[in-house]
Formats: sequence, C-alpha cells, structure tokens
Amino acid sequence: MVTITFRVNGSEVKISAHEGDNLLQAAQRANVVIDAPCSGNGACGKCRVKLISGSLDSPKTRHITDEEYAQGWRLSCLSKVQSDVVIEVPDIASAYRSRMKVADISSPEELEIFNHTRAEIEAAGIAFGNNLSSVTVTMDAPTVDDTMPDNERLTWAIQTATGAERVTLCFFALKKLARVLRENDFNVRCVIETVGDTVNVLDVLPANDDTPIIGLVVDLGTTSVAALLVDMENGNVMAKGSTGNGQIRYGADVINRIIESGREGGSERLQHAAVMESIRPVVLQMCKSLDINPNQIYRMSLAGNTTMNHLLLGLYAEPVRMEPYIPTFFHCDDIRTASLRIYLHPEAKLILAPNIGSYVGGDITAGAFASMLWNKEEMALFIDLGTNGELVFGNNEFMMSCACSAGPAFEGGDISCGMRATDGAIDSMTIDPETWEPSYTLIGDADKPVGICGSGIIDIIAEMFKCGIINGKGKFNREHKRVRFDENGMGEYVIAFHEETGGIRDVSINEVDIDNFIRAKGAIFSATMTMLTSMGMDPSVLEHVYVAGGIGSGINMKNAVTIGMLPDIDLDRFSYIGNSSLSGAYAMLTSTQSREKVDELARTMTYLELSTEPGYMDSFVAACFLPHTDANLFPSVEI
Amino acid sequence: MVTITFRVNGSEVKISAHEGDNLLQAAQRANVVIDAPCSGNGACGKCRVKLISGSLDSPKTRHITDEEYAQGWRLSCLSKVQSDVVIEVPDIASAYRSRMKVADISSPEELEIFNHTRAEIEAAGIAFGNNLSSVTVTMDAPTVDDTMPDNERLTWAIQTATGAERVTLCFFALKKLARVLRENDFNVRCVIETVGDTVNVLDVLPANDDTPIIGLVVDLGTTSVAALLVDMENGNVMAKGSTGNGQIRYGADVINRIIESGREGGSERLQHAAVMESIRPVVLQMCKSLDINPNQIYRMSLAGNTTMNHLLLGLYAEPVRMEPYIPTFFHCDDIRTASLRIYLHPEAKLILAPNIGSYVGGDITAGAFASMLWNKEEMALFIDLGTNGELVFGNNEFMMSCACSAGPAFEGGDISCGMRATDGAIDSMTIDPETWEPSYTLIGDADKPVGICGSGIIDIIAEMFKCGIINGKGKFNREHKRVRFDENGMGEYVIAFHEETGGIRDVSINEVDIDNFIRAKGAIFSATMTMLTSMGMDPSVLEHVYVAGGIGSGINMKNAVTIGMLPDIDLDRFSYIGNSSLSGAYAMLTSTQSREKVDELARTMTYLELSTEPGYMDSFVAACFLPHTDANLFPSVEI
Repeated sequence: MVTITFRVNGSEVKISAHEGDNLLQAAQRANVVIDAPCSGNGACGKCRVKLISGSLDSPKTRHITDEEYAQGWRLSCLSKVQSDVVIEVPDIASAYRSRMKVADISSPEELEIFNHTRAEIEAAGIAFGNNLSSVTVTMDAPTVDDTMPDNERLTWAIQTATGAERVTLCFFALKKLARVLRENDFNVRCVIETVGDTVNVLDVLPANDDTPIIGLVVDLGTTSVAALLVDMENGNVMAKGSTGNGQIRYGADVINRIIESGREGGSERLQHAAVMESIRPVVLQMCKSLDINPNQIYRMSLAGNTTMNHLLLGLYAEPVRMEPYIPTFFHCDDIRTASLRIYLHPEAKLILAPNIGSYVGGDITAGAFASMLWNKEEMALFIDLGTNGELVFGNNEFMMSCACSAGPAFEGGDISCGMRATDGAIDSMTIDPETWEPSYTLIGDADKPVGICGSGIIDIIAEMFKCGIINGKGKFNREHKRVRFDENGMGEYVIAFHEETGGIRDVSINEVDIDNFIRAKGAIFSATMTMLTSMGMDPSVLEHVYVAGGIGSGINMKNAVTIGMLPDIDLDRFSYIGNSSLSGAYAMLTSTQSREKVDELARTMTYLELSTEPGYMDSFVAACFLPHTDANLFPSVEI
Repeated sequence: MVTITFRVNGSEVKISAHEGDNLLQAAQRANVVIDAPCSGNGACGKCRVKLISGSLDSPKTRHITDEEYAQGWRLSCLSKVQSDVVIEVPDIASAYRSRMKVADISSPEELEIFNHTRAEIEAAGIAFGNNLSSVTVTMDAPTVDDTMPDNERLTWAIQTATGAERVTLCFFALKKLARVLRENDFNVRCVIETVGDTVNVLDVLPANDDTPIIGLVVDLGTTSVAALLVDMENGNVMAKGSTGNGQIRYGADVINRIIESGREGGSERLQHAAVMESIRPVVLQMCKSLDINPNQIYRMSLAGNTTMNHLLLGLYAEPVRMEPYIPTFFHCDDIRTASLRIYLHPEAKLILAPNIGSYVGGDITAGAFASMLWNKEEMALFIDLGTNGELVFGNNEFMMSCACSAGPAFEGGDISCGMRATDGAIDSMTIDPETWEPSYTLIGDADKPVGICGSGIIDIIAEMFKCGIINGKGKFNREHKRVRFDENGMGEYVIAFHEETGGIRDVSINEVDIDNFIRAKGAIFSATMTMLTSMGMDPSVLEHVYVAGGIGSGINMKNAVTIGMLPDIDLDRFSYIGNSSLSGAYAMLTSTQSREKVDELARTMTYLELSTEPGYMDSFVAACFLPHTDANLFPSVEI
C-alpha cells in the first residue's frame, strides 16, 4: 500500500491506495474533486494535477507541454500511482466546480424574476396558492369530567374551525402534541394541508408562533444546482442559493454519469453526490441564513432533466441512454423527500416537474411553462442552453420539443479554459480590430480572470471572426503576440497570460475549443431549422425567442447571431429569461394550478427525435461554419 | 473522575464517572442491565451487586444481611462511587430480564392457539383476509415504436389484470422497477395493497419469486415482548420470538417509566429501549431463522397498554399518569414503522390496538377480542394478569372494563425471588403437609431453580396456607428447617437453599413478598367484585372466566381460588387463554374485519374507574386476607 496526499487549497487529504491505482479514481474515493468532464478517458485535458513528490506512471499527452511536464503537471486520469506521492490539485478545478453561494433575500429587486413569473402566470388566468396554510385553535383543557384524548380534542377543534370532514395528524405532529398543548394552555397554531374534505395536520406550534410555512425549490442542473426557500402562503422568496452538482466528478455530461451509475454501487454514488454534496448543503446554508430549522420546510419541488431526476432518485438509469431510450417514469408523485435523505419536515413531499422523454425532462417542461409561450398566439421559440440544448417551439395551440447533442460547451465544458458563469468568469469580451487586444468583463468581485463562461465564448468567437483572427472554419490565419501555434500547427488566442491571471496557465481559446463550440452552436441552429422545416416554416415566423439557462445573463444576442447560433431575426425579439427551470419549479411549488398546467403541457407537448429526422444531419453539418455555410440565412452578418 | 468496571457474565464494561455518582445510574448510562423494578428508591432490594474492589458509600439495608454486606453485597441504587471500583453484576439480574427466544414454526401444534383464535373468529362470522396480495403480470418489452415509460407500462398491466382504476407505485418499487423488469423479460410478480379502486404496488419481484407476503405481530408488554411473523395470505404463523422489554431498567412499572420519560431525553431513551433493545433484535432474529429480509415484512400490528404504546411512539407521557389522566390518543392510524426506526418494508404501516383510557390499553382491547366474550350470550370475565391487572366483564350485549393497581407481582416483580415465566422459573409447587418439604417443577430445560414466576407464587402461598405454614394474614407461625425469622422477626420459607440452586442466595419467599402478592390478588378480586356489584350481580353469574397474561400457563386455578384471587365458582369455568394480547394483535393484522371489530369494541366498551367507585377501597381491604375476610365468599376453601 502507498499513501496519496492531495493538497487542495492549502489543506491536505490523505488516502491509502495500491500501487498501480488510477490517480483520478483514488481522488474520487477520497472525495477530492478533480475536474474530469470526459469521465477520465484522457480526452478533455482538464484533470491536470501537479506532482510534488513521489512517482507516477503517467504519459505525456497533447494537453501537457514539455515545459509543463517538466514542472510536474500530469493528467490524473492517465496516471498510475507508483509510490507515496504528494499531489497538488490546482485551483482551476475548484473554479470550474462551483462555490456555494447563499443569500437571504432582502431587496425587492432580487425577487423581480419571480414576481415577474408570478404576474405573467396570474395574467394567464392561473391562480397562485396551494393547499398549505395554518389555523389557530383554542380548546378547553381536559378535566376529570372531560377526558377526551389530545388528538380527538384537536381534531374536533380543527373540524369546528375549518369545516373539514376528516382530520388526520401526521406522526411528527402527534409526537409533539401533548407537550405543545400543555405548554400553551391549549391554544395552538396548526400547519395544515387540505385535500378535499380532509385536513392533515403537519405541525402544532404555539398560537403566537408566526414563522412562515416554507417550501423548497430546486433546479437540479447537470452542472449547477440552484435553490430557493419560499413562503408558501404568499409566494415570497426568502433565500436563494446555488452550488455545483457534485456528480460532476463522474463526468460532465449525462451519458458518462449514467455509465457510472450502472456500475456496482453507482446509483448510490450518483444519488449521494446530488443529495449530500449539493442539495443538502445548500438547503442547510439557506436555513442557517434565515435561522430556521429544516423541519419547517413542508414541501419541495424540483426540476431537472430526465437523467438528473432519475439519478436523484437513485434509479437504474441505463435504459435512459440505450435504445429504445426508456425512462422509469415521466410523471412521479408523492415521494417523500426523506426517502432521498433530504431531511425537511418528515412528511414533506417532492413535486417533480414531469419528463416527456429520455432527453426532454422536467427542466424543459417547467421552463417552457415559465416562458409563457403556451399562452400566446404568436409563434415563439424557447431555447434552454444548459448542458446540452433543448428547444420548444409553438404557441397557445401546439408545442413541439426536441433535444440536441450540444454537449456542455455552453456551460464551459469541453473548452480548455471554460467554466460556469460564476465568480471570475469572463462573461463578455470585445477585441480591438486594429491591435487584436481584448477587453473583457468578469463575473463577481474577481479582478483576475479564472476562465471563460458560455456568454464569453460566444463573444470571443464572434469578435475573432469579425476581426478576421479566425476564418469561417474557426481556424487561425496568422501569428501575433496573442496568437500562437503549437508543434502540430494548432492555433490559440491568449486572452490573459498567466502572469496577468496569477493562475497556473494562460486563459486562452484554441482551435479544438472553437471547433467544440461551433459544433454546439451548430446543433442548436440546426435543431431550430429542423423543427421549423418539419412544420413547413422558416425563422421569419418567430415573433419571439426566449433564451434560458446556464450560458449566463451576459449573453450578447447579436454575437450569438453573428456566429450563427441563433436565427437572424430582429434583435428585439430575443429575451434572456434566466433560469426558467427554477422559475417553473417555483411556480409548481407555490401554485397548484401551475402544477396542473405543467402536467398538462407535458402531456400535450410533442417530441421530435432529431436523430431519426430526415435532413437533420445535413442541416447540422451545414451549420458547423461561421456563421453558416449558407450565408443567405444570415443576411445581417457582414463577412 | 473515577472508573467503574462492571463484570457481567464474565465480560467487563468500563465507564468513567464522577466521585459521588450513583452506581445504578452509571450502570444505566453504560447499558449494563441491573434489575431495578422500583426505579432506584431502595424499596425492592433487587439491584444488589457485589463490590469486588474499591470503595462505595452504601448503607446497610434490610435487603442485605450482615453476612452479605461483609461479602461485598450492596444495593446499587443506594451506592455512591468513591474511587475506581470493580463491580460484579449477579446472574439473578440477567435471569429476571429475559433471554431472547426465537423459533421458526415447523410443527402444527405450535400454531394451535392461533388456529384456535382464527377458528373462533370465523365461527363468529368475521372473515379472515386483508388487502395485501400479489399479482403476476407480463408486459411487452418496449421498442422504438412503443416507448411508454416503465411505470406507465406496469400500471397498464396491473389495471388490465386487476380492474383497478388507479395504480400507484411506492418509491421502493419504483426504485427497483427498471432493473427487475429487464432482468425478467418484463414478467414480474407485484406485491400489492388494494384500497378501494386503487392498487398500490409495494414491491416488484421476479415472476417466479414465491416468497410469502409477511406481516409482523408484536405484544409489547411492560415486562416482556412477544412477536410473530405471519404469512399475510393464509394467516400461517412462520416464526415466533420473545424477549424482555429493555425499558425494565427504568422501572418495573409504568409509573416509574413515565417519570423517567418526562426527564430530559427520557422519551428517546424509553423509545430506544423498546425498539432497539427489544423489538428490533427479535424481528432480526426471526428474519434470520427464516432467511428472509426485513423488507419483506409489509405490515405490523402491535398491542400494548396505553403507556407502552405512548412510550413506543416516543410521546410525552406525563399526562397519562397525572390527573386528569389524558393520553395523546386512543386510536392512531397510519404511522409508518420506519418512523419508529423499526425497519421493515419502507412503507410498512403500524396497526395499533386502540386504547380506551390511560389504564386500559390496546393489550386489553385486543385481548378482550381474542377472548370472544363479546360473541356469547353468557356472562363472562376476562382477566389479564400481566404487570398490573385489567378486567373486562360482559357478553354480546355490553362490555365493561377496569384496571387495578396489582403491580408487577404476577410477573415476579415486587417479589424477592420473583422472575418472569421463563427458563429456570418455578412454575408449580406442592408442599408435603407432614414434612413441609417442597416439590416443584421448572420451566424449560433448567435443572436448578433461578426464581419463582407468578403461577409458582400462587402455588407456594396456597400450599403454605393449606399446610398451616402461614396464617390468613400471610404470617409465619413457627420455625422449621425451611422457615426462619430474621432479627426483625420477619419470617421466610426457603424453597431451595443456595447450595441446591448453585446461585448466590437461597430461593425463598418472605412475609414482605407474601404481603405484596396478597395485595395484588386482593386488587384483582376486589376489582371483580366491584364490577359485578356495580351491575347488581355476584360471581354466580359468571359462566366463564378467561385468564390471560404473563402469570404463566402453569396457573393452578384451584390454588388461585384457594388464596382468594379468583372467585369461588366451578373450576371448569376457568380457562387460561395465554397471551390474548398477541392473539388479538395477530387477528387485527391478518383480518381487516377483526381490526374493525376491535375498533368497534373499543368504542363501545365502558370504563369503570375503580379509584372513584364507592366501596372499592373497602372491598380491597377485605380481600387482603387468605382467602378473604368474608369466608362465605369462598365456601370451597377449607380453612
């Protein structure tokens, strides 16, 4: 046995291993997060670590220069341990995985998006409100002549107050009942859930306890997790939080995660990563920021793609990825969050946004609902640019959806210096056409760039294309202070030299990155065209395009058109609507009618399978060019 | 800090303590079971331990002779630790607490009592059968043209097979679904629960899996726990088990346990003792004997007195013991066993036999049901002689119940050499009227007596009374080889000298024991008389007396009449019906109609509060004599 010591952000983690063990897998066992979006097959080059002492059997690869290799840099996925080793895990990894961000909400502006969602939904005739509420009751204390047991006494009082035909007490309430009644002279406030003629008592509190009845909203993305705590009685957002999806160390995309989940104990590992490393920490932090106990959270809603909700539940997900692509469920009711070891109120149930297929899941049904395109006569397109891309096209008469294999590029995956739209990410950029010098903005308080998020990559490619630094195929034309070529002739543009970033390497974009991104944008555009064509239509019918997802709010629509990602229509028809999956899940939690509407949309939405759709592959190949091989589709783009 | 070392059955347990700490409480903290039925107030003398080394501050008491004190014997409840000590905990304690006994049932005779219960119940027009069953279905495997998700595919198949309007899948079944379907070519056997038009799928098994659908029955007694595993489809008993109630170290009676439960963390301690030390070990052993997984147990029923079911649920029980004596519930539905950390099938629900008051609980409603007195025109009496005594009097037109403070004497509590009716207990005895030499029988394979159980105590007192060894007040008349008096003049009869028992002291019965037992039997008899008198009746109306409970199947009815415990009627009117609480809980589990009938009995049964009933105290005082101060009530007893 040998000992591996990982140095991560100044702290050390040690693990025993056998000689010959794979370094990346050892890190995963030790819960040391090393970024491995390609799931450890040497393709992406992101899992680089620095060997400080000891010996690794590790090949040179195109991802590590000779100089870097001499400094100790290795790809952990290709390294086998040969002795006791000390390994430094660089900051680029922890920047790509996400820091937890939690805030309680004090300013009304922070609520804007949800208030907007709510106003739009109410304008569409869908009432807000749900079946959780509270009722305060006063009872006579028992005497020797009135020996009714506590639960019957409370039942009778609630029946009198509410007119309910039947009252049930959950075990959590029953357990507290005798004490709370006596400590409060038989004056109590009950948190209740009303189902038909039945009132179910979820909690018994002192009559003067006015803590809100809280609900939890989660958007479980492939890369990121976003969450809200919400007051169930008025819909106010009380806290918000976000973090990375801890499953990322098992692969950046859903396919690699499903493969991992199919291995011995894999379902448990994936579920553990989502729940224990992602959802629970954020929930606990939000509770802490509000000084509340998680058992005051009475219900949870969650939107995620089909793979995410299957892995969250710990299901066997292999059938989702293998022909004929069959999920365990589209619609799934009444799971208690405690069954997933998400410990809220012990009876808290999980509302899951419904899937409509293996590749169009609850994030899209919830997101399409939040986009409101189902409520307007005008034709509109909803595009969710997360990990992969999903599209919904339609209006108040029909809705059609599809998914395209765009990969994780929009969230920074498959891009050598890519990262999520979080602190330190370059989210917008221009290039001086004369000097080719870049100017960029960063997300958050960072003063040095850590990497590039999706919206930044769009800008860089568009600007390089407009300046003639790259051609329509995404290839570099000539050397420059900021453009260099490696021994194989692969070009690269440096946005920030590592001296400027304080990091371990330059922040740059190379031809492989550009190629990956062009294929991603080509997938989105060709999906758009294929859907329109299948209806005998073209982009001119689009009155509105709603862009949602993790690409970042900084998305420059003009640049997105310039690179041929979005159709060339009036720019004022585009809107970035943020995290529509979260907005939709918020509506499903707080509004019973919204939940019913999402279920109805899921039932009626049709699904277009692109891989079997004639013409899709040709359309995709044609779109893998800047802006497109058919320049007529982009008249506004000057080449 | 000092270290206390407990030696128990050859193994050692160490715990740190402060100087001055109480030895009994330290033992409880260390989970060392020392018998303390009086809950540590020096009254019962059972918590004796032997000081091997070190120093205790511990007074002499009447429970320890000078010779014993010199040998190191101390009452742990009165001892304070003064230094590091080594303490031997004697075997008498582990004999009183109960060894676990588990057997799977192979011989039909073992089933007799339950078959008898079942036959009687069916003869009364109550059907056996419940809503658990299984259904085997075959589905078409999905194809690219038939992409229905797994849960909808199964739902459709079950609807077709059963005609159910609605099918729900519990999370446990959902989680397995994809894999089980594919591993069995879409041929599966589903364990289902039918409620109205809805079928709830609890499990999905291979089509050829014919493991039974199992249920768990528990009688949670104050002193003992008995349990059965039952085939829910045919009612067959598959395994039985018993053990002591681990709560016993917090007191032998319900009052002391409620007091303990009211202390900081007390509810949790009492619940833990019942679940973790008693119910779960027996269930796991029974499962092991049958080679099944606990998640194949789909439902549980439990009968216990009001305090026991409150402590099992972890409720705040102080109101049960304090005027006006209000339990949290009489009737309580739909608690999942997992909420109590009894891990069966994750959706397994607990059926609780209903209480009708603070001192007449589910053991009595279940037991009265099993006695069948509610189904006959003849007047009958049901007496449950467990810890305390409860009585039900009535017929098919009315039922009246009461509880009397008989204490734990019938199960060996409050008796210096008393023990439960388990291995090594003297359960029957005769005394030669000439020589006063005893002959006794023992329970189980033991060849030496460990103590005396309830039925043995009845015999000893009756025999001593008939032989003139004691008088009507229970006092000894004169010395003899087997009768001795201590310095205070207290007499004692030795059944087995310690040389014969191999134990640490003689097995004997003294005047305090006899007095305790006479008060217990007086409570039962006066309760009987008070109930009859309240109806204007006398014992001659009794066509039948059903005796149930932990007193032991060896009970000699003639001796019980001789000491004035049972009314002086024809001996053939008495039946010992064993553990009626367990039989009733068995019926409630396996037969929905039985459960409904028990609920109906609980609603209609009246409760007579003896403490406020005129004449009860006089009747009790008059009954504290052998056989009774009014000899006319016992014409068959020759004095």
